[in-house]
Amino acid sequence: MTPADDKGNFVRRVPAGDTRERQVCADCGFIRYENPKVVAGSLVIDAGRVLLCRRAIEPRIGFWTLPAGYMELGETAEEAARREAREEAEAELVIERVFAVYSIPRIAQVQVMFLARLAQPHIAPGSESLEVNFFALNDVPWGELAFPSVRWAIGQYRSLDDQTAFIPFSNPDGENGDFA
Amino acid sequence: MTPADDKGNFVRRVPAGDTRERQVCADCGFIRYENPKVVAGSLVIDAGRVLLCRRAIEPRIGFWTLPAGYMELGETAEEAARREAREEAEAELVIERVFAVYSIPRIAQVQVMFLARLAQPHIAPGSESLEVNFFALNDVPWGELAFPSVRWAIGQYRSLDDQTAFIPFSNPDGENGDFA
Repeated sequence: MTPADDKGNFVRRVPAGDTRERQVCADCGFIRYENPKVVAGSLVIDAGRVLLCRRAIEPRIGFWTLPAGYMELGETAEEAARREAREEAEAELVIERVFAVYSIPRIAQVQVMFLARLAQPHIAPGSESLEVNFFALNDVPWGELAFPSVRWAIGQYRSLDDQTAFIPFSNPDGENGDFA
Repeated sequence: MTPADDKGNFVRRVPAGDTRERQVCADCGFIRYENPKVVAGSLVIDAGRVLLCRRAIEPRIGFWTLPAGYMELGETAEEAARREAREEAEAELVIERVFAVYSIPRIAQVQVMFLARLAQPHIAPGSESLEVNFFALNDVPWGELAFPSVRWAIGQYRSLDDQTAFIPFSNPDGENGDFA
């Protein structure tokens, strides 16, 4: 959310014909519908190692994350995941399947995480990354991961222990995405 | 989108620090970020039959749909799917797994469809439904389905032919959710 997103003279009330309070501009009547947003990202696996990007931007600058970001209009979830990998790691991906769908109500996110592999053997830091690297599952910097869902995804992938038949994951029991 | 959503004096330009055109209010500078929205819904299976709801509201009034709708703030995708089934069919669900993640760029939707079953043997039309019913897979009213993604989901479910191990579906090849 940028500072400009806080402009407008918004009050909370139930618009005519609705059943929920919405943010309504007291000046012009514009209704700012608030719905969860979709983050699309990938667990990119290469020779049993997972691709991580060290963030060059807030939040969690300097911490490691999976290539992922907000979907834009006009793209599919798969296209958004491929774009994010290109932007953050100069990686061209082949999307293999849905790996997990996580919900993080506190920040109104649904995260669609795909299992993917490199289409070409090239990665390099994009403008949002300080560095990018593949990590063996035993060498993941668990204490330096940017977000709980990054930990979930890598932990759940590791729990598969090379099983290829699995159903998609969701939030671990009792976890809502807040930092512990 | 309600009429009130068209209020405000929006123009398209690239805000400072951004790389994409956004809708910006020429009067107050408010940026209306547009991102895809999440529809959460369920393929509710009971004794091999699928739950359909005949729509009492536009769009596609009178056509059959799966219980599904826009996620609201503060809920998980699973909670949204259960709420929609309650609202549209008075059905209490047990969510079993992610069935499909569909993207429909034209209308900026990501649809997370779960496989689910009834927690209690009760269904009845909610205020958004004219009638609700379970249909055997051979009796689905294919010509009266409300949306392409309803057809995808039921068709893909039928293609499983009682297999229980499958990876989640996405859009059928070449289909983008437009009506044929």
